Amino acid sequence: MATLPLISDEEASAEVLAVFDDIRAVRGTDYVNNFWRALAHDPALLAATWGRLKDVMGPGALDPLVKEMLYVAVSVANGCEYCIHSHTAAARAKGMTQAQYGELLSVIGMAMQTNGLVTAMQVPVDEVFEV
Amino acid sequence: MATLPLISDEEASAEVLAVFDDIRAVRGTDYVNNFWRALAHDPALLAATWGRLKDVMGPGALDPLVKEMLYVAVSVANGCEYCIHSHTAAARAKGMTQAQYGELLSVIGMAMQTNGLVTAMQVPVDEVFEV
Amino acid sequence: MATLPLISDEEASAEVLAVFDDIRAVRGTDYVNNFWRALAHDPALLAATWGRLKDVMGPGALDPLVKEMLYVAVSVANGCEYCIHSHTAAARAKGMTQAQYGELLSVIGMAMQTNGLVTAMQVPVDEVFEV
Amino acid sequence: MATLPLISDEEASAEVLAVFDDIRAVRGTDYVNNFWRALAHDPALLAATWGRLKDVMGPGALDPLVKEMLYVAVSVANGCEYCIHSHTAAARAKGMTQAQYGELLSVIGMAMQTNGLVTAMQVPVDEVFEV
Amino acid sequence: MATLPLISDEEASAEVLAVFDDIRAVRGTDYVNNFWRALAHDPALLAATWGRLKDVMGPGALDPLVKEMLYVAVSVANGCEYCIHSHTAAARAKGMTQAQYGELLSVIGMAMQTNGLVTAMQVPVDEVFEV
Amino acid sequence: MATLPLISDEEASAEVLAVFDDIRAVRGTDYVNNFWRALAHDPALLAATWGRLKDVMGPGALDPLVKEMLYVAVSVANGCEYCIHSHTAAARAKGMTQAQYGELLSVIGMAMQTNGLVTAMQVPVDEVFEV
Repeated sequence: MATLPLISDEEASAEVLAVFDDIRAVRGTDYVNNFWRALAHDPALLAATWGRLKDVMGPGALDPLVKEMLYVAVSVANGCEYCIHSHTAAARAKGMTQAQYGELLSVIGMAMQTNGLVTAMQVPVDEVFEV
Repeated sequence: MATLPLISDEEASAEVLAVFDDIRAVRGTDYVNNFWRALAHDPALLAATWGRLKDVMGPGALDPLVKEMLYVAVSVANGCEYCIHSHTAAARAKGMTQAQYGELLSVIGMAMQTNGLVTAMQVPVDEVFEV
Repeated sequence: MATLPLISDEEASAEVLAVFDDIRAVRGTDYVNNFWRALAHDPALLAATWGRLKDVMGPGALDPLVKEMLYVAVSVANGCEYCIHSHTAAARAKGMTQAQYGELLSVIGMAMQTNGLVTAMQVPVDEVFEV
Repeated sequence: MATLPLISDEEASAEVLAVFDDIRAVRGTDYVNNFWRALAHDPALLAATWGRLKDVMGPGALDPLVKEMLYVAVSVANGCEYCIHSHTAAARAKGMTQAQYGELLSVIGMAMQTNGLVTAMQVPVDEVFEV
Repeated sequence: MATLPLISDEEASAEVLAVFDDIRAVRGTDYVNNFWRALAHDPALLAATWGRLKDVMGPGALDPLVKEMLYVAVSVANGCEYCIHSHTAAARAKGMTQAQYGELLSVIGMAMQTNGLVTAMQVPVDEVFEV
Repeated sequence: MATLPLISDEEASAEVLAVFDDIRAVRGTDYVNNFWRALAHDPALLAATWGRLKDVMGPGALDPLVKEMLYVAVSVANGCEYCIHSHTAAARAKGMTQAQYGELLSVIGMAMQTNGLVTAMQVPVDEVFEV
């Protein structure tokens, strides 16, 4: 249950439809997922968010699959259910194997554990880690 | 300022020294960082944490550099200062370029933003994302 | 699914009913929402929480609608689904327009993003920000 | 201690200087704070972040002071020290009184408390809160 | 809806079944809960997690019931729904009374509130708290 | 560096001094720690927070030492440095041994790890955990 109804294509303004169409074109699918349909209540926020996401998640110095796994890692630490589902699905669509997923989970679990231990003990940063 | 004094080599028990020596051997450096010196107050916790970290962060289906960047991503979302410094340094030591770091930051920023938007709107998970 | 059954008016003790009645009087509605019915298992905690909430959220130096939006912002960053729903509804009941909600979402998204970037880079606080 | 050195005006590229100049012009001050000087290592990220911040935090359906207080609220829940300092300072610069700050703190404390209680009891969302 | 199907006894490998059997033996119940059935996709992660959990949560310097309540407290602050349900149930199975649960909730609520206030005001650590 | 100067006894109003005196009497020490001196800018918030803390943290169905350890656990998951220091010191003052502290750390680390794994896999709550 969202705090806002999802905007269908029929309800969308021309400005919103243009973003939906770009999402379809860039992703090579007709499906526009719920996040964009909720965000469509604020066309300026929708356009800014999609424009930036397209830039950030595209190919660059990091592999697009690595970027999706990083997205999952942040979303897990934040406890964002929708984000975990959508980006785990995206990582699979970009070729994440079961073995890679298992290692992703292992690193997340390990990082959570040591984050807790370090925070509990308030360990001071080593000088060697300074830039 | 830690909640516990850091254990030097001189103060370490034989059990703790064995772990410190393994850290030195695996990492090819004489330096044992503060996290392990704080954890050394509980030798069983030290041994279990190091043993597991060695397994998880070693080579496997994911590249060790990718694992370090995932570690940074979790640590940022959790706000763990020490973890951010130590794993950013480790990622650099494993070859992370400035361009890769810039993209890591961009993905983290993007993920934080959409995590907040999704959570605020309580967007329901799309059926297509279900396993 | 709660970890505790919700307390109905029929099951409530006189002490709990007195709080429920005050909630109804202050809010001008017969409806007592689930949070209070769960908290009612501990009458002292119920009375202390309601008493304080009534003080804090009433009129003062800040507008009650602004207070509800601040509540939503905290709840989003904490990922508290119930809190997001109840305080978004309360903000609407206090007159939040769709344009204001859109800007609330935009600020939350922006703050989440820069929180992530600042934390990732461990930016030192500028002296000019010191009191 | 940042994970990156801060970029001075002397070290800045023309692209970065253009953003610094826009920050100065929009804010009516010569001072460019550390966040932008850290972000300047990635000129595209700097430009995108500043461009979006300028849009989001400007006047609109919500008062700029309200936006700053919302920013503080998110930053507190995320535990971002730098963000808390810079946006508390910005809220003061935009006229936040001590009484308003006291109420901001009270709402944040109240929201944190009830977020914890609701989450602990896993209270189900009331149907009346559904859109 | 998990991101992975749960592994039944019939689908489990010998390695996974050995862990499931140990869970049954240690806990004195036939029931293996969903967490272990999801984790079973990665047998090494399953074995490492169960092995460590068994050590950590067993009797020692702290009472097993106290450990379960500490687990609930961490899980609430992290917003982990599953963890809250499973460890609240475990605490009840280990004898947590309603009065103890009420106090657990009160401490969690109090800690969340003062965490928010302290973080908002960025209170410096008193020297007397230093080790 | 706080966002507010700390209020000394000399600067305190009669209303604030009355709370400071009660803190001294209840704790059997002359020392009033920084949290209360920061909160003193808002006497009503100071009085409400101290009044509630005194009730919640006193003896009851849970041991005061257990309550301090629960406070530490919440504060670690929230990453509140001040809270971790002050409540770890309080737990030590109430008799926490090094072995108990080691187990507290172990439970926190374990809970953080499984919180991350459960959240990453979005494990559905078992029916047996329902009330």
